[in-house]
Amino acid sequence: MLKVGILGATGMVGQRFVSLLADHPDFEIEVLTASPRSAGKKYEDAAKWYLDIEMPESVKDITVVNTDPKEVEDVDILFSALPSNIAAKVEPKFAEKYIVASNASAMRMEPDVPLLIPEVNPESLDLIEIQQEKRGWEGFIVTNPNCSTIALTLTLKPIYDLFDIKRVYVATMQAVSGAGYAGVPSMAILDNIIPFISGEEEKIETETLKILGTLKDDSIEPAKFKITASCHRVPVLDGHTEAVFIELEENFDIEDIKDAMAKFKGLPQKLNLPSAPKKPIIVLDDEDRPQPRIDRDNENGMAVTVGRLRKDNTIENSLKYVLVGHNTIRGAAGASVLNAELIKETIL
Amino acid sequence: MLKVGILGATGMVGQRFVSLLADHPDFEIEVLTASPRSAGKKYEDAAKWYLDIEMPESVKDITVVNTDPKEVEDVDILFSALPSNIAAKVEPKFAEKYIVASNASAMRMEPDVPLLIPEVNPESLDLIEIQQEKRGWEGFIVTNPNCSTIALTLTLKPIYDLFDIKRVYVATMQAVSGAGYAGVPSMAILDNIIPFISGEEEKIETETLKILGTLKDDSIEPAKFKITASCHRVPVLDGHTEAVFIELEENFDIEDIKDAMAKFKGLPQKLNLPSAPKKPIIVLDDEDRPQPRIDRDNENGMAVTVGRLRKDNTIENSLKYVLVGHNTIRGAAGASVLNAELIKETIL
Amino acid sequence: MLKVGILGATGMVGQRFVSLLADHPDFEIEVLTASPRSAGKKYEDAAKWYLDIEMPESVKDITVVNTDPKEVEDVDILFSALPSNIAAKVEPKFAEKYIVASNASAMRMEPDVPLLIPEVNPESLDLIEIQQEKRGWEGFIVTNPNCSTIALTLTLKPIYDLFDIKRVYVATMQAVSGAGYAGVPSMAILDNIIPFISGEEEKIETETLKILGTLKDDSIEPAKFKITASCHRVPVLDGHTEAVFIELEENFDIEDIKDAMAKFKGLPQKLNLPSAPKKPIIVLDDEDRPQPRIDRDNENGMAVTVGRLRKDNTIENSLKYVLVGHNTIRGAAGASVLNAELIKETIL
Amino acid sequence: MLKVGILGATGMVGQRFVSLLADHPDFEIEVLTASPRSAGKKYEDAAKWYLDIEMPESVKDITVVNTDPKEVEDVDILFSALPSNIAAKVEPKFAEKYIVASNASAMRMEPDVPLLIPEVNPESLDLIEIQQEKRGWEGFIVTNPNCSTIALTLTLKPIYDLFDIKRVYVATMQAVSGAGYAGVPSMAILDNIIPFISGEEEKIETETLKILGTLKDDSIEPAKFKITASCHRVPVLDGHTEAVFIELEENFDIEDIKDAMAKFKGLPQKLNLPSAPKKPIIVLDDEDRPQPRIDRDNENGMAVTVGRLRKDNTIENSLKYVLVGHNTIRGAAGASVLNAELIKETIL
Repeated sequence: MLKVGILGATGMVGQRFVSLLADHPDFEIEVLTASPRSAGKKYEDAAKWYLDIEMPESVKDITVVNTDPKEVEDVDILFSALPSNIAAKVEPKFAEKYIVASNASAMRMEPDVPLLIPEVNPESLDLIEIQQEKRGWEGFIVTNPNCSTIALTLTLKPIYDLFDIKRVYVATMQAVSGAGYAGVPSMAILDNIIPFISGEEEKIETETLKILGTLKDDSIEPAKFKITASCHRVPVLDGHTEAVFIELEENFDIEDIKDAMAKFKGLPQKLNLPSAPKKPIIVLDDEDRPQPRIDRDNENGMAVTVGRLRKDNTIENSLKYVLVGHNTIRGAAGASVLNAELIKETIL
Repeated sequence: MLKVGILGATGMVGQRFVSLLADHPDFEIEVLTASPRSAGKKYEDAAKWYLDIEMPESVKDITVVNTDPKEVEDVDILFSALPSNIAAKVEPKFAEKYIVASNASAMRMEPDVPLLIPEVNPESLDLIEIQQEKRGWEGFIVTNPNCSTIALTLTLKPIYDLFDIKRVYVATMQAVSGAGYAGVPSMAILDNIIPFISGEEEKIETETLKILGTLKDDSIEPAKFKITASCHRVPVLDGHTEAVFIELEENFDIEDIKDAMAKFKGLPQKLNLPSAPKKPIIVLDDEDRPQPRIDRDNENGMAVTVGRLRKDNTIENSLKYVLVGHNTIRGAAGASVLNAELIKETIL
Repeated sequence: MLKVGILGATGMVGQRFVSLLADHPDFEIEVLTASPRSAGKKYEDAAKWYLDIEMPESVKDITVVNTDPKEVEDVDILFSALPSNIAAKVEPKFAEKYIVASNASAMRMEPDVPLLIPEVNPESLDLIEIQQEKRGWEGFIVTNPNCSTIALTLTLKPIYDLFDIKRVYVATMQAVSGAGYAGVPSMAILDNIIPFISGEEEKIETETLKILGTLKDDSIEPAKFKITASCHRVPVLDGHTEAVFIELEENFDIEDIKDAMAKFKGLPQKLNLPSAPKKPIIVLDDEDRPQPRIDRDNENGMAVTVGRLRKDNTIENSLKYVLVGHNTIRGAAGASVLNAELIKETIL
Repeated sequence: MLKVGILGATGMVGQRFVSLLADHPDFEIEVLTASPRSAGKKYEDAAKWYLDIEMPESVKDITVVNTDPKEVEDVDILFSALPSNIAAKVEPKFAEKYIVASNASAMRMEPDVPLLIPEVNPESLDLIEIQQEKRGWEGFIVTNPNCSTIALTLTLKPIYDLFDIKRVYVATMQAVSGAGYAGVPSMAILDNIIPFISGEEEKIETETLKILGTLKDDSIEPAKFKITASCHRVPVLDGHTEAVFIELEENFDIEDIKDAMAKFKGLPQKLNLPSAPKKPIIVLDDEDRPQPRIDRDNENGMAVTVGRLRKDNTIENSLKYVLVGHNTIRGAAGASVLNAELIKETIL
């Protein structure tokens, strides 16, 4: 059992970490950090619990400490659910001694930091050695992509393995939980859509290419295709929906792509990692699926569900589909946990 | 004052016709038709009223008749809110004697039937003569496009006037009222999205090109660019939102497009038609607009509101924006009423 | 293992029966009935599946038969999810030979028919002998109460055991699933409340008193207190919320009532019936609970959750609380299943 | 024209004040105050506008000042949309010189402060003289009740004029706008109900009795009946719904009560005050009304709509009904404006 801590344990994603790690076969929660306001309180008292599943008994009595490297010791891995501006400051300090598996965006695009989806680019872990050497750290930072990016890139991977992608257009319909518990007021979203999520389109447009890129010397050379995004908030609790249009460089048989998606497996499946979904991509034939309320929890929220996969009638060498992924599980806390499981199995 | 009737007056779109025509300066409601079940009843008793504005007093006592040409006489224009399968059968019969301004999809793609957005393609009314001659009708049928298509095409028009469009990608987020009052059960859409609307994508992909096409001999030669759509139902009462990605044939200045949209006017504005919005396209600079709940009623629901207009960072010669249009006003009943106003002013 | 059938297996409550019975330790689904339209089809094809959990594999290939006693044979218990008007006609025919555990309202108030909540009035099963004798049936009918009534009456029972109740006022906030899958259009309930549910108030006002009544000779003498209800539909998927005001005949200590509720157990708990919740009533101290989304699934949807239990500040000898119960589990299919489990354990 | 200011002009209720006063025939907005963060900015820049109707042109350029008596001069009436804790501190200071028409709860229950609903207790304005004398103020404070209380008490008044009320039970279903723009996170209320609103039940239980009380010497002797409330937040944007159960001291004819409600008028109607609804209470016969989305805007949001008025079947001398009132218009800003109109017409 590795000893782990959660940085920023009281927020929405922090709580997901708690719930995913409480009964984990390989990890044991030892440390929970939060802002000074919560430090010194029992977790039970510090965290207003948001999830529909109950707070695990085992964490209730843990005393929350300030998010400060001096307050933390005797852990192997720190999971970070910190806001990006705070992550930028403290994650490097933690990485001097510890492994940091971060959901924060701060370090994702650093050249020497792996931006990891275990099924897609496990080879990006090769950057760790470069990172440690360059920065003089005993520990290191591994990040997972933005919630919308993870779901999208997982579905692009089996296509990219078969064909050269020319362009990707994606319009997202994102759940309110993505903004944190109090991020979207009900007055803003009831009977409404908000067509803007700060920084989201840029993240999709850059992170996807890094993940599907190739390791060259000391850094990742991004994939060469173009990707453009339009992001929208919708009145859905959990589960991001994405309408995806892809143009390939050549003609294709849609059944080959369907087949590749449905059969797609990666290293987590081969290694049988605890959080790995059996099928990272579930392909549905129903004409009106995937739907976020029905499909977000597929494979414990770790699978991405694809439907309406069809050849484009009007634009040549193109296809369209819709995907649903759980934004705070596969798209956040679950992603970091799977990253850590891969690190444990392949590096430690 | 022209005497008008409403075919299919008790449904969602029928009620919008009633509310738009009840105090109309040029039209007077004389006839309301519905299915045999409602025939013989006062409108007040036949129609379960759905709109948030009240049923106009003037229609309450009108006796509803069956949707049958034999039951209708002494009108100038019939507005059709019929379901497509019924429209296919009865609209041609009505058109033997009357002008039919139809919101139904049945006749839209007939080569000799105008598919009219008065600001965009008023010249399509030239088809009427061809239609009457070919079919031997005293009356004629003029149709308006599908709700999503109208809003989209209105915004494409000023761009298309300036530049050659190469491709359009559109992802829609459509309000539940588009499916009729009982079309979307609450169990289906609360905390959910349904990524499928039957026939909708095909309508957008074909109607748009007919509207922006050119009259050649006896029919319309469709516009030459490519358009592809992905359509989704969202938990919003009224107002369709569309994420639009456009590739042009050449480079452009985004300010020119913004300017062209904001200044765009058509024949309805010049003729000062009663239902014509002063600005058919409202362009907003706010980073988080348009929003359906806030923008659907702009210009009495007859304007399309555009926001997030931006040059695409990643795909060359491309731009992106989001639009909101009221699906049952500008996208349905209001569209037919504006069509009829144009016909009255230019043909009768 | 007893062989069971489900009458009306394709609707909302029918599907709940299917999901609760598919892996039941004592019951095995042999027969699924539906309307003639579905008869002859595989269940998988006949039922548009509504639940968020998946359709059990074991029922997919069962051929649905018409809801007609001639079509059914070789079962021990029939669970009825029939609409009330159909139940009135066919349940008595089925009861000639079979045990019918019914969720329909048709027979609930018949003097010789048990209206059973196993924790509250198991002695009502004594009516079975009377029913069989009077009607000459080999089988019999046992009913469960209306969804709102079950949750309310479960919470009244421990109070009624301690004190004489004088009056109960209840205002319900009921989930849309209570009306069936297509019962509440989204246009009716988004951003809205509907303050009327046909027949619901009368059911609460009569059924509660029969359940808490006493067996006298051949029938139940209803409890003597007064109960009045106001029922409202709210935009919630599952889980009815009820605001309850109770006046007792005498003064009381609120802690005694809290204690009685929290410790309340009945025969299902003593017999350890498979569907019995460990705690039929969960009492929460949080100031803002119970909430339907968070508390409806407590104890697999079989517990009622109570909160805001407080002495009334203004009306003497009175208390107030709010409860949440899952309307299609504890309030419908789960209730019938628990009834059948009690019958199996105590009668068969 | 009287010159007026709005204290706390940038919040939800402040914006309602702005929209109601911008074109008011008797009042002219001269001053807008807010917190130091907004002071010095143009209103257009200081206020993130929340309402679906547009920000009035006339206020856009007004420079917001700090909510401090030193910053305000040359006004006749100040409308207060301040949070209660701030109102407690600064309203008395403003009242030294100005008339304060307050929506805040801080001063409502002060013995010498009118808690005014102009149709119900205009005589409470007699307290002003006592208030000024006792406190040595040139100005004075008049308050309006809590949003739920106003709607309820308006409907109680015509009943109370005819009969002795014994008890009132009320369960509220309150819109999210009542908590301010960011008061209820979407994560908290989508597919959910929150059965707690801090302080709300106490306000209903005390304010109602003060309003229906009688002026005795220097203060109001509260009405003698009992009232108890249970308050719940529901996923509705605007418009509070209340289920009301009333026991009278004697038997009654329900038609008399219906008639009294429907014909009810007060001083604002007699004086024809600008914001006075023609009918303060609208009584509907439809079995499924009132509904908040449909009825909240009746009479510009200034009427309360009542439906399901019925004699109680089970509890003697009792009746039940459901009401809907617009919480931020009749229940807040509109209430204060009507108060000020009454003051202008009868005192100034």
